[in-house]
Amino acid sequence: MNALHTKIVRPTLLIDKAKCIANIDNMIAKAKRTNTRLRPHFKTHQSAEIGKWFKERGVQSIAVSSLSMAKYFADNGWTDITVAIPVNVREIDLINDLSAKIQLNLLIESRESILFLDSELINTVGVYIKVDTGYNRCGLPSEAIGSIQILLDLIKESKNLNCKGFLAHTGHNYKASDQNQIHKNHSKTLLDLNELKDVFRKDIPNLEISLGDTPACSISEEFYGIDEIRPGNFVFFDIMQYVLGSCDEDQIAVAMACPVIARNIDRNELVIYGGGVHFSKEFIKADEEGTKLFGSIVRLTENGWSEILGGGFLAELSQEHGIIRCSDMLFDEFTIGDLIGILPIHSCMTANLMKEYLSTDGNWIKTMNSCQ
Amino acid sequence: MNALHTKIVRPTLLIDKAKCIANIDNMIAKAKRTNTRLRPHFKTHQSAEIGKWFKERGVQSIAVSSLSMAKYFADNGWTDITVAIPVNVREIDLINDLSAKIQLNLLIESRESILFLDSELINTVGVYIKVDTGYNRCGLPSEAIGSIQILLDLIKESKNLNCKGFLAHTGHNYKASDQNQIHKNHSKTLLDLNELKDVFRKDIPNLEISLGDTPACSISEEFYGIDEIRPGNFVFFDIMQYVLGSCDEDQIAVAMACPVIARNIDRNELVIYGGGVHFSKEFIKADEEGTKLFGSIVRLTENGWSEILGGGFLAELSQEHGIIRCSDMLFDEFTIGDLIGILPIHSCMTANLMKEYLSTDGNWIKTMNSCQ
Repeated sequence: MNALHTKIVRPTLLIDKAKCIANIDNMIAKAKRTNTRLRPHFKTHQSAEIGKWFKERGVQSIAVSSLSMAKYFADNGWTDITVAIPVNVREIDLINDLSAKIQLNLLIESRESILFLDSELINTVGVYIKVDTGYNRCGLPSEAIGSIQILLDLIKESKNLNCKGFLAHTGHNYKASDQNQIHKNHSKTLLDLNELKDVFRKDIPNLEISLGDTPACSISEEFYGIDEIRPGNFVFFDIMQYVLGSCDEDQIAVAMACPVIARNIDRNELVIYGGGVHFSKEFIKADEEGTKLFGSIVRLTENGWSEILGGGFLAELSQEHGIIRCSDMLFDEFTIGDLIGILPIHSCMTANLMKEYLSTDGNWIKTMNSCQ
Repeated sequence: MNALHTKIVRPTLLIDKAKCIANIDNMIAKAKRTNTRLRPHFKTHQSAEIGKWFKERGVQSIAVSSLSMAKYFADNGWTDITVAIPVNVREIDLINDLSAKIQLNLLIESRESILFLDSELINTVGVYIKVDTGYNRCGLPSEAIGSIQILLDLIKESKNLNCKGFLAHTGHNYKASDQNQIHKNHSKTLLDLNELKDVFRKDIPNLEISLGDTPACSISEEFYGIDEIRPGNFVFFDIMQYVLGSCDEDQIAVAMACPVIARNIDRNELVIYGGGVHFSKEFIKADEEGTKLFGSIVRLTENGWSEILGGGFLAELSQEHGIIRCSDMLFDEFTIGDLIGILPIHSCMTANLMKEYLSTDGNWIKTMNSCQ
């Protein structure tokens, strides 16, 4: 066993720092080329240490997916944070604490939220109006000019709300059948958001459009009218992004290392210690018959991992077990106690479960979910 | 807002202690009636405090799903623990630590594991041979008498392995279409395990059969030849168990309380703060069209929650958001900042993610995942 592998006794998320840095550098270059501000979404890694890799490269603004995460990164020196989920008004105390210390930006989409914040805020916060570009999760449709105007008027009348502009997430890109579909979604999003910008340009000084999702930010070079991009997943990437065409296989910067705990020769199955509490139960359909794919197999190397091994895949997950279906050759390669590498389907969900990571240069990386 | 609800500012797993205790008492009574030892599986709650509720009622033996979990419960006073997953030989140091302090039982199913343990164990451990009763995850088929004999002979020759018997998990009960199917699976399991017991009775002194899954342990009264039952989920139950017929609706002892953060009147959708990082992404298919159900809706009351509300369901989950599709009436009942209750699909996965729980009498309950 090599030095790295001896550190691994149970399911462990390996991080290839060099690949992460390359992914970060690529997105920084994309933001420069497209004249946008990069506000990376830190929900993917949730780690102050990985945050530093961005800061060392000049990134100053971030997005997070909860006020708790905003607190964690504020405590770790970040001073410009957008909480990119409709504001949870029950956390008003935390909002008031944070907005005393940092530039806090919130997302609003309803009259009720604005009125509540106006009544309870102690300090000024930035707000973005959430716009739905077709994902149909939340936000106002970009064509709902009248409703948006009502919200804007309320914000203008408020004491502590400072309207920054519009924020959108083209989440339906994750359901795209191919890159062409992502380009189409993205083009429509750009059109809609630019129309909105034109309508409200004179109403909102320095109106900004913030747009984010890793597929479009990875694939497209076209961001006219967009002031800020908010991709998150690109720091790690994963099999879902690889299938969507957002990244090459060798840009995937995370792999789970799992011990083999059983082998079934009749079914050519390797059983790993590594289940839904490690990977999450996200899957993609691997073929037209609907075969579920919970992860792709790699061979761990001294300081990283191999290309995807064609002869097997992670086919089932229960709470702590995973089942890898494999070819004779792959089956014969692994015995009880060996480590096997798995590229996760959705790295955000896997990283959230894993609480800490092991970099391929041998250092443990803490996250907001680590007990210190 | 009542006293309980004021404590809830973000997604929170509510525990109805009275329902938990009733579920525990029911299973203890079932074990008495069927002349079996109850060894509850603690992977569902992962909490020393909830463990105490069992101990106060005379339970002394437990099952867990990882060696880390065995360590946590050993540190909290449990002295007879079965790790009910094929042994992960990479954790030999922890195995040697634990087996110095407690009665530790491991699961084996391969020659390699036995030889490794025999070479590395410092103290005596109990071992069960894992038998596959048709779930096809791991274990030897009960009819593989020759292979089982080989393992038994190796165990006999070993210094520190003490064979306790056979352990099985009829996990395919979770795929049953109805209770009748669960009864059929269970009957076949009983037949197979009793045949095995007959074959090896003279070989293994005090041979024990350990069997566990919440559906069969809840539904059946027939456990002839079974020495020990290992259900886990029954302490909380959930929508999956309710649909399988393992419990009544009012036996479900956990509900997520989630703040409403957005409302879409055009689609009759409530958006909650509560996503895959809180619930897990487990779902069941609610109808023949394959509609996904991620949770059922209840109204939170002063000290608990209502019956399931027919007018809506948790229809989608992303990382931190959930979408509830609802009737006009249900939609109108909830506004921004309100709490809504959701009965989870799979309480083990939800509890694992939530790290601590709030009992409906207002106390926070720590788990092995809580940072102290």
